[in-house]
Formats: sequence, structure tokens, C-alpha cells
Amino acid sequence: MKKISILGSTGSIGTQALEVIKQHPDQFKVIALSAHRNIRLLIEQIKEFHPDTVCISDTALSEDIKNNLGKMCNDVLYGREGLLELAGRDNVDILLNGLVGSAGMEPTINAVTSGIDVALSNKESLVLAGGVITQLQKKNNVNIFPVDSEHSAIWQCLKGEKPEQVKRLILTGSGGPFRNRPTDTFSSVTVEEALRHPNWNMGSKITIDSATMMNKGLEVIEASWLFEIQVKNIDIVIHPQSIIHSMVEFSDGSVKAQLGYPDMKIPIQYSLTYPDHAAVSWEQFDLAAIGQLTFEQPNFQKFPCIKLAYHAMEAGGSYPVVLNVANDMAVDAFLRNSISFTEIPQLIEKAMEAHSSVGEPDVDEIKELMSWTYHFMNSKLKG
Amino acid sequence: MKKISILGSTGSIGTQALEVIKQHPDQFKVIALSAHRNIRLLIEQIKEFHPDTVCISDTALSEDIKNNLGKMCNDVLYGREGLLELAGRDNVDILLNGLVGSAGMEPTINAVTSGIDVALSNKESLVLAGGVITQLQKKNNVNIFPVDSEHSAIWQCLKGEKPEQVKRLILTGSGGPFRNRPTDTFSSVTVEEALRHPNWNMGSKITIDSATMMNKGLEVIEASWLFEIQVKNIDIVIHPQSIIHSMVEFSDGSVKAQLGYPDMKIPIQYSLTYPDHAAVSWEQFDLAAIGQLTFEQPNFQKFPCIKLAYHAMEAGGSYPVVLNVANDMAVDAFLRNSISFTEIPQLIEKAMEAHSSVGEPDVDEIKELMSWTYHFMNSKLKG
Repeated sequence: MKKISILGSTGSIGTQALEVIKQHPDQFKVIALSAHRNIRLLIEQIKEFHPDTVCISDTALSEDIKNNLGKMCNDVLYGREGLLELAGRDNVDILLNGLVGSAGMEPTINAVTSGIDVALSNKESLVLAGGVITQLQKKNNVNIFPVDSEHSAIWQCLKGEKPEQVKRLILTGSGGPFRNRPTDTFSSVTVEEALRHPNWNMGSKITIDSATMMNKGLEVIEASWLFEIQVKNIDIVIHPQSIIHSMVEFSDGSVKAQLGYPDMKIPIQYSLTYPDHAAVSWEQFDLAAIGQLTFEQPNFQKFPCIKLAYHAMEAGGSYPVVLNVANDMAVDAFLRNSISFTEIPQLIEKAMEAHSSVGEPDVDEIKELMSWTYHFMNSKLKG
Repeated sequence: MKKISILGSTGSIGTQALEVIKQHPDQFKVIALSAHRNIRLLIEQIKEFHPDTVCISDTALSEDIKNNLGKMCNDVLYGREGLLELAGRDNVDILLNGLVGSAGMEPTINAVTSGIDVALSNKESLVLAGGVITQLQKKNNVNIFPVDSEHSAIWQCLKGEKPEQVKRLILTGSGGPFRNRPTDTFSSVTVEEALRHPNWNMGSKITIDSATMMNKGLEVIEASWLFEIQVKNIDIVIHPQSIIHSMVEFSDGSVKAQLGYPDMKIPIQYSLTYPDHAAVSWEQFDLAAIGQLTFEQPNFQKFPCIKLAYHAMEAGGSYPVVLNVANDMAVDAFLRNSISFTEIPQLIEKAMEAHSSVGEPDVDEIKELMSWTYHFMNSKLKG
């Protein structure tokens, strides 16, 4: 019986993870759940999965839970402090980090510090603190199990293979909703249009990242840390059907790919059952019914966010931190209709250019860089 | 340094294997070569690779070699007897069996009996004697490394995975040259048309098998033995571009595939370098340049040979033996313009129906069944 805690249990990844866990009641025990503000859903989840501990974002909501559930849930934490405490507890086998954005970094660090394996959906953890986390990981002999479909695909293709015989990772990307939209109309993209993703049902931040293709850029950075490979050996290929989830090319030119319908439940489950494939009765994969898979080169001119991400990782150190926080804030501003779609990469680039770079930032330096970027972006967003 | 002997060194697989070996002079030493009648090419190969031993099909040719090469090649075997002796020698690490047709079975058995790992291109070995060979293999702790692109793909996808978590093998097939040809014109197919394969450059027997799709049927049987999985859990999907070489579906619905350009050099090399991927400078794989991959269901009505192969393996025992020998002879007759294209499956079916079935034939019984099928087919072909 694997003991699991889930951060972000009411979000897109969290709810799907609980669906997976529900299918294998003999294999998993939910120890803890954390949610932001969706108290109604969190209460439902508590009633169904009986975690020992829950965490919610503020004290008033935590009182609500206690009043609603009484003895069913005694241990109710709250706020950022509660979340960080929960993430560092070593009474679980796997912590699934389904948090969205930069807020996910410290919980990952806390879990890895406590020697807990992390099923990592929060891509910002490695983008912000890849150096810190991989160092802690090696020191504490901790695994990071990727949840993202692309990284899960690569991870599965690498099974049984020698890292030194990997020539190239090939990340696939759907190209997002604007693959065929003329570049000169990008400045008039609406929030509604950007939220309409053709294949994947995801949270709104990630869906916008998919529209700008920053998502793919962040994935390149994450893959570089996860699989210890330089970004120059990571390519992107656009694959609108999202059936091939990613590929690995080996030194003899042999390419392995992992395929499936675009459904996060397979990679989520694999991150919890690794190295095993647990039997499920999901829809049988049928390539003949799909009929056709297409592929094209990514357009770096049309989607400058990808290029910014490659540049950030090549420059290294503090650059990915600034890229990531600036992106978080630019996307948030776009979702609030404060800036246009094309201003997202422009503002990120300005932040990267303006910051004082740091070689190998530690956690405090990362926090300072985050804070600097926050203030820089706020001044630009107000100005 | 791996010591290699190659049966069928002047054939399609043999010549490509020697090209592979030439690229890695530090990794391989050619110990023995066997050829049928192409003495000119065999002499070139002897001059280049300096094998200790060669074998050619008759004594007159063996004298030619001795006269031509003198001391360069002292050990010259000939005939069927020479071939079988060579195959059973245990002075090599891997025997690459690149023989075509039923003649390849006994050399595989001899190698496995002598405890030698076999890189197996000859699909008839397992189709005819899968039971015998897998039993000997286990007894002598011998590996069979698949050379066929489909089986190599499956083998690569299974690396690091547990056999009990495999749900299904999915063999891809180009569909051959007649995928889009109307069924009612099949009786007028010419030898020239059937030899024109769209993707793969192979020997003539295998190219005809590809046109009838018996090739895919034999591969299903071979996969069943190689990977110890029932044929009901092996599916075929038609994939005209021959880029995805085959797939494995696991119990969680995750599918792994192996991809590459249609070039036998990758699977040949992998069969010799396993478990490693040796570095080579072949053309970099580019899915965006390929652009599109398509898939469709196989048409069992149009290509009855596939159905015959499934039936033979489901019936088991002697059925695959009769299927295989009848196919060898029917293809040979078609290549000699003695029978029409549509008579190939008809004659095979007749032979399967007419024979007295045997449960788990041993080598002698397999030879008797082969002989019976030979005489049966000859009577039909003359009649």
C-alpha cells in the first residue's frame, strides 16, 4: 500500500490523480490533501478518501472544514506555512505536487529534503530550482517521477536504457490553439480564444502557456534537469493530434516513442505505480481509428516564448528563474485583460535583460530573484 | 570484440550486416561466412573481412574459392552438411542467421544446441520449430536476438518492462504494393508488380510474402514465440510509411513504439550490439520532414494469407509447419510463373486442410511434415 499526499487536490491534476487512486483502492492510501480555496470539493474529497491531514489556504476556511467534518478530519493545516509543513512530512511514500506556478517550488524542495519521492506535475519546481533540487535529490537518494505527459513519455522510453546512449530527446507539442493563426493577428488574441485548447483539458495558466508555447519551452528546461541532458540536445516537433507524447533518439538512430490518447490519467498513474504498469480498463488505443498523425517544425518566430526558454536555459543560473516568474505574472495579467497576448514574451524578455544574473542561485537567491522579478513586472504592468 | 558468423552473407541481410560490422572494426570480428552460389561476392567479402571459415553450396565452388584465395582462406566447407556443421560451431559469440526460407531452421537449431546466441533474421526457424527452439533456448540459456524490424521494435519497447504487464503487441505493416489495388484484379498480378515493394529493399521471397501479406502473418507467429504471447494478443495495423516499426501496449494503456527510417541496418546492428546502442552517423531522423503517418485496419478478406497464419498458430503443432513450407513452395512457383498470385493462399489452405496434424512435433516430425508438404505441393503444382 503506497501512502500518497496530494498538493493541489482540487485542481486539474489533483482531481484526476484521485480518480486514478479510486481505481486501485488496494494499492494506495491517501494521507494528505491540500487545496487552495475550493472548500466544497475538498470536503467531498475528505469524505471519500479520509486523509489524516488536509491543508487549505486560509484560517477561516480551515475553521469551516473543522465545523463541517468534525472528527472526520482532525488535522487541518492552513496557509503557506501549513502547506510547506505538509510537503516536508515524511509519513508518505510519494508526494504528488499538482500545484500550479512558482508556488510549487518550495513544497518540492521540502519533500526532497525530507527524503520523500515526488510525483512532479509542477514544472516550475525544476525551472526555478533545478540545480538545488537535483543536488538534494542525489544527496538524499530521492526520485522525481514526472507527471507531465511529455516527460512521462521520455521517462518510459528511457526505461532499461543507458543515459550515455541517448542522443536526443524529442518533445512533441500540439502547437496550441494558434498554430494556424496568422502571426499578425496575435495582438488581438482574446483570453477566451487562448483558453480554448484543442486536445488537452488543463488548468487556465497551463492552457495560456500552451497558447504562447511557453509550456513547451518550460518543458525543455524541465527535461534538461530531469534527464540530465543539455537543451541543445532537446528538440521540439509539432504534432497537433497529441498522440505521440514524446520520443527519445539513441546513438544508433533508433527512436522510441510513447503513445496514447491525450489523457493525463496514464502518466499520473504511472508516476504513482512506477516501475509497474497497473491494469486499468480505459479505452483501448486504436491507431487505425485515429488514422493520421502529422508533424511539423515549431515556428520560433511566431512563438518567441520557446526561444526565450532555450536562451534562458543556455544562459543558466538565474535566467530560468526570471523567465518563469515573469511568465507567471505576464500570463496572470493577460488573464485579467491587463496586457495583450503579444506583450507576454515582450515583458519576459525585458525582465531577463534587466536582471543582474547569478551563476548557481541557492534557495535564498532564487527567492530574491523571484521577488526582484515580481517588483520589476509589477512596475511594468502598472506603467 | 564480439565474434560473429553470418549465414547467408551475400544476401540482403548478410550484406547489410557486413556494412554494419565495417563501421565498428573495434567491436566485431567476422569468424565465418556462408553463401549460396554468389561466389564473386563471397570472394570479395573474404578479402575484406578475413573469416577463418567459409561455406558455399557445392564442392566445385569450394574448389574455386581455394584456387582463388589459396592460404587466405584455408577452411572451406560446402553443401548442406558444411552449413549445418558451421552453424553448430561454438567458436563465435553470435551467429547471424540471414538465410531465407525453411532452409534456415536447422542451422538455428544447431546454434542454439551449441549454446550460441542467434541474431535471427530467418523467420521460418521459429515458424517451423518454435516449440523445439524455445525449449532448447531455455535449456541452454541462449538468447535469440530478433533482426526483423518489427520484432526488433517490440524487443526494444520491452526493454526494462515486465512480461506480465504486456497487454498487446501491435505489429505494423506497410500493406505491401497491393494495399490499394482492387481485390478482383489480384488474379492478374504479375511477378514484376509483386516484386515492387514501396518501402523496403529486401530479397525476392520476402518481397512476395509482403505482397500477399503472409510476411505479416509469419511475423505474428514469430512474435508469439519470441515474446511468449498468444496470437490473440497480437494485432496488426497497416502503416504505409513504415516509420513506426511496431508497438507494445501495456496493462495501463500506455503504448511504446520504436521508429526510424525503413533501413534494416538499425535492427541488424542492434541485434549485434544489444543491450547497447552503438554510435553511428546515419541520417538524423526527422518526423517534421516526413510530415505524416497514416494507419488503417488490415483487410483479412483481401489478404487471406494473414488469416491463414493466425489460424495456423491458433491450431498450433504441425499447422505452422505446413503453412510455412506450402508458402515457400507456392511463392517459388509464383516467381517461376507457374501459378497465379491468388493461388498462393488457395494452395496453402489446401495443404493445411489435407495434412494429418501432430501436436508438438519434434525435429524429425517437423522434417517429415516438411517432406509431406513438399510432395503434396509438388503434386498440386504439377496437376
